[in-house]
Parts: sequence; C-alpha cells; structure tokens
Amino acid sequence: MKIGIIGGGSIATFLLQSINVERTLPNSTVKSVLLRRPEVAEEWESRYGIDGYQDLNAFLDSGIDIVVEAATVQAVHEYAEKVIAKRKDLVIISVGALVDQTLYQNLREACRQNGTRITLPSGAIGGLDVIHSAYASGQLESVSLTTRKPPLSLIGREVETEEVVFEGTATEAISKFPKNINVAIVLSLAGLGSDKTTVKIVADPQATKNTHCIEATGAFGRMSIQLENDPMPSNPKTSYLAALSVLSSLKKKTEYISIG
Amino acid sequence: MKIGIIGGGSIATFLLQSINVERTLPNSTVKSVLLRRPEVAEEWESRYGIDGYQDLNAFLDSGIDIVVEAATVQAVHEYAEKVIAKRKDLVIISVGALVDQTLYQNLREACRQNGTRITLPSGAIGGLDVIHSAYASGQLESVSLTTRKPPLSLIGREVETEEVVFEGTATEAISKFPKNINVAIVLSLAGLGSDKTTVKIVADPQATKNTHCIEATGAFGRMSIQLENDPMPSNPKTSYLAALSVLSSLKKKTEYISIG
Repeated sequence: MKIGIIGGGSIATFLLQSINVERTLPNSTVKSVLLRRPEVAEEWESRYGIDGYQDLNAFLDSGIDIVVEAATVQAVHEYAEKVIAKRKDLVIISVGALVDQTLYQNLREACRQNGTRITLPSGAIGGLDVIHSAYASGQLESVSLTTRKPPLSLIGREVETEEVVFEGTATEAISKFPKNINVAIVLSLAGLGSDKTTVKIVADPQATKNTHCIEATGAFGRMSIQLENDPMPSNPKTSYLAALSVLSSLKKKTEYISIG
Repeated sequence: MKIGIIGGGSIATFLLQSINVERTLPNSTVKSVLLRRPEVAEEWESRYGIDGYQDLNAFLDSGIDIVVEAATVQAVHEYAEKVIAKRKDLVIISVGALVDQTLYQNLREACRQNGTRITLPSGAIGGLDVIHSAYASGQLESVSLTTRKPPLSLIGREVETEEVVFEGTATEAISKFPKNINVAIVLSLAGLGSDKTTVKIVADPQATKNTHCIEATGAFGRMSIQLENDPMPSNPKTSYLAALSVLSSLKKKTEYISIG
C-alpha cells in the first residue's frame, strides 16, 4: 500500500518513523507528503525517502493508494472532497471538521459516487466496537463520556478538589472545548449522535494523565471502559493511543483476516 | 449488498429477522441460505424471501457478494476455503476453527491470492479497537480477560463464594472450555496471541449475567473494560452483543464513513 500524508506535524512524523523507518506495516510505505514548508519537505525527502509536494494535484497523482489527513480541520474542508474525487481512500484525523453536517453529507455522497471509503481512527478512546454493535440495530440506549484531566492543562490553574468544568451534550462540549474534544466527536459519530451523547469534563487534582471513561447501556447489557492515556513520547500534548489508532486504521486496510 | 448465510440456527434467524424483516442494513438483503434441513429452507423461503440451498456451489453461485458462516467450527473447516476461492468475502462466527494454525494460515493465503477479506465479529466483548491500536506498532504489553458466570450455567452446581474455575493462558482455556471461550480466541487474535493472553474464569454466586473484564497495558497507558452481557431475546445461551456484533461487521461493509 502506498500512502500519502497531508500534514507536517507530530502525527505525520510519527507515521513516517513507524512505517518508513520501523516498517510496522507489512508491504506498505509512505510515498508522498503534502506540506506547506519546502524546507521540511527537503529534510523529509532525505530522512524518510518520501517525495514532498506543495501542490495537491501533483501529490494526488504521485501513485498513492490512500491519503491520511494529519493536518487541521481547515485542511479537511479544503482537500477532502478533492481526495475522494480522485478515488483515493481517506483517513481523517481532524475529525472536528465532521461536526459540519453539510461537509459530512457531501463527503459521504462523494464516497458513494467514487466507490471510496473514509475512515476515522478511534483516537484516544475505545470500546467503539461495542457502541457500533449496539447501535447497528437500534439497541443502544445511552452513551456518556467522562474526561478527567490535570487542572493546570485543562483550566490553567490548580484546584484543591475536583471541579466539574463542563456537563452537557457532546454538541455543547464540542462548541465550548474545541481543542479538547475530538473524543466526543468520534464517540458521537460511533453511536447516538452529538445531541444524545452526554459529556462531563472534570479538572481532577488527583489526575496525572488524561483519562476517559465511557459508559453505554442498551438491550445488549452494559459497557464501561476506562482509559488512562500516556502521552506520545515525541509530543506530550497528544495521547499516544490517538497516534497508534491512525496506524491501526492503516493496518486494517492491509489485513486479510481482521476483527470488527 | 447481497448476503449469503451458512447455518440454520439462532444467529441465522436473528440476521434474517434484522436484515430482511426489520431492514436494519441499508441497501442490503439476505438472498441465500445454505442449510442442512430442506423443511427449514422451505419455511424460510416463504417467511424471509430467501433461497435455500443444500449444495455449496449452487449457494455460492446464487449472486451473493458476501458469506456469513453462522454454523459450526466444522463448517468453517469444510467451507471457508471454498468460499474464498469463489472470491466472496467471509464473516466467520465460529472463530474456534481459527485455533488451527494451519487453517488460519491457509485462509490468510487464500484471501491474499483472491483479493478477499475475512472478518471476525468482536463477539460478546469489546475494546478490541484499543488492543488492535496498541498492538499495531508493538506497543502492547499485557492483556488479561476475567469472565464471570453464574455457577449453575458454568459448572452445573451452586457455590457459596466465588470459585476460580480456571486461570492460565488463553491457549489452555480454549482447550479446556471449548464451548465457553470464543471471547478468548477473538481477544488473542486481536492482540498478543493465545500464549500471552491470560484468562481467568470465575463461578460467581453474585453474577446474574455473564460478565467479561479485559485489562490491557502498554506504552499507550492502560485500558480496563467491563461488559455485562444480556442474553439474546430468542436464545438465552447466546449474548445479545455477540449477535449484534455480526450485524455490526456487515454494516461496516456498507458504510462510506466508518470508525476504526
């Protein structure tokens, strides 16, 4: 599988290191990267053996099978439909873009017309397999997410006892905490949608890491999942699991026998 | 998507009811069923609008896109390679068959040669998305499963306090509890393999339902998931989530935008 990446940040670097240096994906390589800065392109060309592009069409015509967007919400708005129109599968990391219902529906329709697929990595959370299963036949009743973070990183000050910073629907959480809330978006898309998924964000003086707890109920029974996320070694602001989940999405495309 | 089912039991019935009667999968229908008993075939033909077959080749040539094995381990041994050779994607429910490493490797190779995919539904458990992500780049350290069941259903007698019926590797659990342990097989395949996945089975007088707890650790951090499984309305011996996960696997094949 020949992969193209849009973006020049820490996720792009992680993918290049994993795939092109450590060879974690069988028979796969990152061939092309679309990024703004020519000096980074030049450095990556020699370090990772990729071709760097500043022009989208040249990037899309460079012999790649699949594109990973690892840039920004703006990049999704700007490039996603064009990627699909060129019949490339697409992995979208900046899932915040899909809050825009018009974009979501346009991308879905473009995939249908071009016979392509968009994959959203599960990010810093999990148990989405259970939620997808429960939802598949209308058997999902409730989904709630509780995110706990160290106070300083969340609200910029210390607190003595835990402080509920937000409690409400995922829709509200997404608009009030746009930087923190990719998990709420993916969770909403996996199940009941953002109006029916509830979110609680807690500044917790006991928390040394970001933790997410998801509870779901339905005719299947009950699920509860707790995740304690360690940061990426190369970028303390990103959960390592979120980066690994991108690799997981790509790996699934290459598996002949897979689970889910 | 035109679906063919191998099997005439409760999962087959559930899929027919969900897909052909309740129309839970967009633009999809079960077209053909391979089953042993002609009288069931006849009844299902009129009830669900399917075509019943006793002959595998006639079934495979009936215009179906994908096959769901919902029968037995023996049926996987007998039919799976032939399904793949006809270039049909395959969903395998009787995952116990894949304990046979030779069969597993043969199926994988057959998929590679024919450009097809085998999917294993996540069954009565979840969080396999996290395990797959952690494993994708060698970042998974430990995976353990604790299954609790009501004593009577597990060991045929009541106990006063909880009794650990088994503790060891998934490999041992699979050979000692073949009927109970599909979850251990799927969990092993998702991550560290059956020699490195640990399993504990507990007869719990407090348990009114089957519950599964999975813990995983690695460079990503830590995951803990608890599942309380309600039974299928139509078959108290099967977890409803296991049935729903089959529908989920099929639904993913029809989604243009999906998570995972």
